[in-house]
Amino acid sequence: MRLGGDTGMDAASQFQEQLARYRAMVMPRLLAVVEGREPGRYLYDLIAEHLSRAGKGFRPALCIATAAAFGADPRAAVPSAAALEMLHNAFLIHDDIEDGSEFRRQVPTMHAQNGIPLAVNVGDAMQALALGILRDNIAVVGPRTALAIAYEFDHLLVESIEGQALELGWIRENRCDLSEDDYLEMVLKKTCWYSFIHPCRIGALVAGLHPSSLGRFDRFGLLLGAAFQVQDDVLNLIGDQEKYGKEIGGDLWEGKRTLVLIHLWQHLAPDEREQLVQILGRTRGDRTQDDIDWIYGRFERHGSIAYARRAAADLAIAAAQEFERAYAEAVVGSDRDFVSSLLRQVVERDV
Amino acid sequence: MRLGGDTGMDAASQFQEQLARYRAMVMPRLLAVVEGREPGRYLYDLIAEHLSRAGKGFRPALCIATAAAFGADPRAAVPSAAALEMLHNAFLIHDDIEDGSEFRRQVPTMHAQNGIPLAVNVGDAMQALALGILRDNIAVVGPRTALAIAYEFDHLLVESIEGQALELGWIRENRCDLSEDDYLEMVLKKTCWYSFIHPCRIGALVAGLHPSSLGRFDRFGLLLGAAFQVQDDVLNLIGDQEKYGKEIGGDLWEGKRTLVLIHLWQHLAPDEREQLVQILGRTRGDRTQDDIDWIYGRFERHGSIAYARRAAADLAIAAAQEFERAYAEAVVGSDRDFVSSLLRQVVERDV
Repeated sequence: MRLGGDTGMDAASQFQEQLARYRAMVMPRLLAVVEGREPGRYLYDLIAEHLSRAGKGFRPALCIATAAAFGADPRAAVPSAAALEMLHNAFLIHDDIEDGSEFRRQVPTMHAQNGIPLAVNVGDAMQALALGILRDNIAVVGPRTALAIAYEFDHLLVESIEGQALELGWIRENRCDLSEDDYLEMVLKKTCWYSFIHPCRIGALVAGLHPSSLGRFDRFGLLLGAAFQVQDDVLNLIGDQEKYGKEIGGDLWEGKRTLVLIHLWQHLAPDEREQLVQILGRTRGDRTQDDIDWIYGRFERHGSIAYARRAAADLAIAAAQEFERAYAEAVVGSDRDFVSSLLRQVVERDV
Repeated sequence: MRLGGDTGMDAASQFQEQLARYRAMVMPRLLAVVEGREPGRYLYDLIAEHLSRAGKGFRPALCIATAAAFGADPRAAVPSAAALEMLHNAFLIHDDIEDGSEFRRQVPTMHAQNGIPLAVNVGDAMQALALGILRDNIAVVGPRTALAIAYEFDHLLVESIEGQALELGWIRENRCDLSEDDYLEMVLKKTCWYSFIHPCRIGALVAGLHPSSLGRFDRFGLLLGAAFQVQDDVLNLIGDQEKYGKEIGGDLWEGKRTLVLIHLWQHLAPDEREQLVQILGRTRGDRTQDDIDWIYGRFERHGSIAYARRAAADLAIAAAQEFERAYAEAVVGSDRDFVSSLLRQVVERDV
């Protein structure tokens, strides 16, 4: 007989195995796009290298799992899933330039290694290649569904870029008077659509659901995406660098407007606000360790990190409730289970 | 009675009027994409401002003129033409970042004014918006032709980005031993496809030509594009800054591998080659006016600029011959005349 803890471990390893299976379906399609193409050294080799050390691929997995859970042959979701993963990697490369991030997944970022000019171009290439992969859909799911999926990608691109504009604009103008609603709008645009809502919606389209019925995934993906992003904000501040893969405290050095920072702002006295404005108004290079320590101290005093942790947990619980509604018509089995497990993994952050 | 010179003037002003007419068809569609959208200050206002001082729009004009010359209602080409112009502007913004260019059309470039982070994102947005505009084609020219046009855009993106990778890679690795064939391959990819070949091919698709018959435009566009690029290389070295709109000699400061530079390399003695390698191996900030003057002196001695001028003229003549073949089935009239005039204007550089 097994106790709860062991069952949890089993669920986690089942999740990892399932994730690896989905990933194995997607990677060959991704690498086929770049293999043997010229120019290699300045373009396709850089893409292949980036893809080969890519993350675990939960976005394509969510897409394939949703397609299969609603009755599709999972292989029919591969072009869409591969395009999602390619776009995600394109976003990472441009994001790292925009954020001035030097490391990701323990290795130098694309621009740190190859300079900003080639890195901008590599990101552009990956965005273009993603759209090329998507054309496979015409043969795989037929022209009508292929077009519906293409519209999802149009929306995905615009929302993600608008979210990025908000985040970058707030930093550039040193906006500090932001509300939780501002934050949620930014996260919905920057993260939730492309990482959660669209993978579900596109998977469901592959399974033959009508475009008008896709709204069921929107609230689920919003809540799950917000849980993910808030948890990401927290891990960036207090995570294990080895496991997290990015510089701990990097968001503070970059001046990112996180839920933690917004909570802090709302609890600071006027003179402390003035000091925070000054610290955040400096360029990354001009901020000092003392500045960062000052912010960490205020986080501690006002319980801002603990607040964000609770918010992430609350969002995850709400997402779990929405999951039941969004996937009510899905087939019970390993694919539906995978989406359900994703919820816990996102907040426990094993993905 | 008018003499030859006056007739030439008339042709030129007719060309400008026709160009303005095509532009007037495209601009409202372009601006409609961004009008009133949020976030304005960090994204859509920047795009609107950039578009409103856009160039004369010869790429969309070539697309509409070709469609009309082959019998289409010119309005049916507007979505494709607008998407071409939007993409061109997206390329300009990322190119300026990649080249480190501070001025374009007499005003600071997007990144010089708004920083690299927002500028990378604005370019991404314009690429995404271009693909969104293209979806109009389904209603305007029907799904089959819309799909054929979409494939042209897929190809356009990949070729342009590969060409950019070659140019940037050569600079990054300080490649000097380049041949004219290397240069032509880079120009075909970087310039000819998106600026000339695809606008013609897409216009012809709008007019109902079969995809298998589009090869007729490839050689025409290659020759015209190469003429354009070589002339652009020359104007960058010796043009009128007021008219040219970019910094004169900017290509040398950026280390661009132009036909002029390749000609020079092939005529330098070994010790001079060594010196050129050293100059080009410096970063932009480390090059001096003496370095630039040294190169200009060698250009003069070896007739490299004169050589490129002749090459541009020869390419333009060959393009004119190809025009007769490519447009043999086109309707005689103002649209076909426009394409014919474009040839002369490209090399006289009034566009």
